Amino acid sequence: MVSRTDIAAAASRIALYIRHTPILRLAGEEFGVACPVTLKLEQLQHSGSFKPRGAFNRLLSEPPPAAGVIAASGGNHGAAVAYAARALSVSAEIFVPDLTPQAKVARIAGYGARVVQTGATYAEALAASRQRQAETGALEIHAYDHEAVLSGQGTVAREWQQDAPDLTHALVAAGGGGLIGGMAAWYAGSVQVIGVEPQGCPALHDALQAGRPVDAPVGGAAADSLGARRVGALMFPIAQRCVSAVVLVTDEAIIAAQRLLWDRFRLVAEPGGATALAALLSGAFVPPDKAQVGVLVCGGNTDPAKVAS
Amino acid sequence: MVSRTDIAAAASRIALYIRHTPILRLAGEEFGVACPVTLKLEQLQHSGSFKPRGAFNRLLSEPPPAAGVIAASGGNHGAAVAYAARALSVSAEIFVPDLTPQAKVARIAGYGARVVQTGATYAEALAASRQRQAETGALEIHAYDHEAVLSGQGTVAREWQQDAPDLTHALVAAGGGGLIGGMAAWYAGSVQVIGVEPQGCPALHDALQAGRPVDAPVGGAAADSLGARRVGALMFPIAQRCVSAVVLVTDEAIIAAQRLLWDRFRLVAEPGGATALAALLSGAFVPPDKAQVGVLVCGGNTDPAKVAS
Repeated sequence: MVSRTDIAAAASRIALYIRHTPILRLAGEEFGVACPVTLKLEQLQHSGSFKPRGAFNRLLSEPPPAAGVIAASGGNHGAAVAYAARALSVSAEIFVPDLTPQAKVARIAGYGARVVQTGATYAEALAASRQRQAETGALEIHAYDHEAVLSGQGTVAREWQQDAPDLTHALVAAGGGGLIGGMAAWYAGSVQVIGVEPQGCPALHDALQAGRPVDAPVGGAAADSLGARRVGALMFPIAQRCVSAVVLVTDEAIIAAQRLLWDRFRLVAEPGGATALAALLSGAFVPPDKAQVGVLVCGGNTDPAKVAS
Repeated sequence: MVSRTDIAAAASRIALYIRHTPILRLAGEEFGVACPVTLKLEQLQHSGSFKPRGAFNRLLSEPPPAAGVIAASGGNHGAAVAYAARALSVSAEIFVPDLTPQAKVARIAGYGARVVQTGATYAEALAASRQRQAETGALEIHAYDHEAVLSGQGTVAREWQQDAPDLTHALVAAGGGGLIGGMAAWYAGSVQVIGVEPQGCPALHDALQAGRPVDAPVGGAAADSLGARRVGALMFPIAQRCVSAVVLVTDEAIIAAQRLLWDRFRLVAEPGGATALAALLSGAFVPPDKAQVGVLVCGGNTDPAKVAS
């Protein structure tokens, strides 16, 4: 199990390579709720999402072979691995499914990685990447189900706690669970971590109901960033202990949150990046009295033309 | 002359109505310079620019008559006045020139103000608004040449100094000079304030060369936000004493800065909002040894489709 010590060590290891992203403290009335709301703007991280935290922690923990690194991804993890590989002068090969938007494919290629687009979903791209890995011997950087990746993503919570020690609740989107798993391991119950998933990608919701990771549907507006078929085995026991609740939101609520971020704040979030906020705006999560709610904006890799209403 | 006491009083007066905008601390290598760079993300302010600071300070200092308020603007000041008027339940009429982009006209109207689009430039819209003001008796909220407006804009510097007390230089775009005048009054030489203007709108540059405010050309990519024909009479003596230098940048450098903000940081700035950064990227301003450079991103009211390269 990932510990706070692991996460603190990850934070030291990756400090030179990642950005300390800002928070924006806002009045609840901006979102129609009674309590203060703090946004953490992690979409301003290198490569446009939180993912470099885990990618750098993995790469710096385990020097890759001459064959370099290989990863499968809906897009953001691939961009982060490509970015980190370039920063560390390592070659990278990234497998993405057909549903990965062009903005993400271009970003990955722009960092100098070889991109292979194959399969309908992340799970199929992962299978193809593993076949290729067996041939090349490259180091696989899993998108979420690895201790170093979980510890790296957990540094978001450590940083947030430094800047906003008063939070009582943190809303975090969940896909394969690397981010929320790492963050829940850091907060360890001191902050209520609320997972938010699209109705079309309920992998964590379904796993917690079943009592174990199970296959779930993959679909909807945020499938490219939150569309893991099942949550990671490593994150699941953390979620059972340290994730307070999981709520589901509609695609309409996600698009509305994306538009509000642009209209009111001039912030661009991709659908997965606006999913946590959608829970607050739609009422899927209702803050209790005296709450201090944090909302993580976790990715911004989208065509900006799509965010304006 | 606007004093630090005036600015501190303005900060108290407007505190409930404005956002404390975040800073983003970055390595100089992100911009090809040797020193650390701090961005202040003031485009995340209400209405998408710094302008509500001055508008609220003016409106809260001088209660408007039943006829409400009237303002002329390239767009951002008008949006801020409309926003502030709505917040304080006052009616507003806003005059904008033909060059004001649709995104700004829509924003002003969206806040419930009456919009009149007339004249080729800000100066002509101002003349029309004054004719109208003589008929209605509404309170004129000047876009920059008023003490309450200068003091309000100066609160950006006060807030920035709280969050980044280590800055040695602050790069600030200049149009009519309300923002840079207020900020220079706050810093009062303790930080070197560098004005940045597009080559097409050199009003402050020309005024400092002439030794008095003089008419200057108005044109180019940022004319809607920085296209005042001449700088304000109130800001000019402050600039003479407390603005260290003014540098000019090309439209190409402004567009490149806009694209870099999107590509690297997922931030959307309008041309005027990216102008200060353009000085750093283009080499128009070269930081000296041991500098700690601040760059103000001051507006984000643009069609986001335009920022992607």
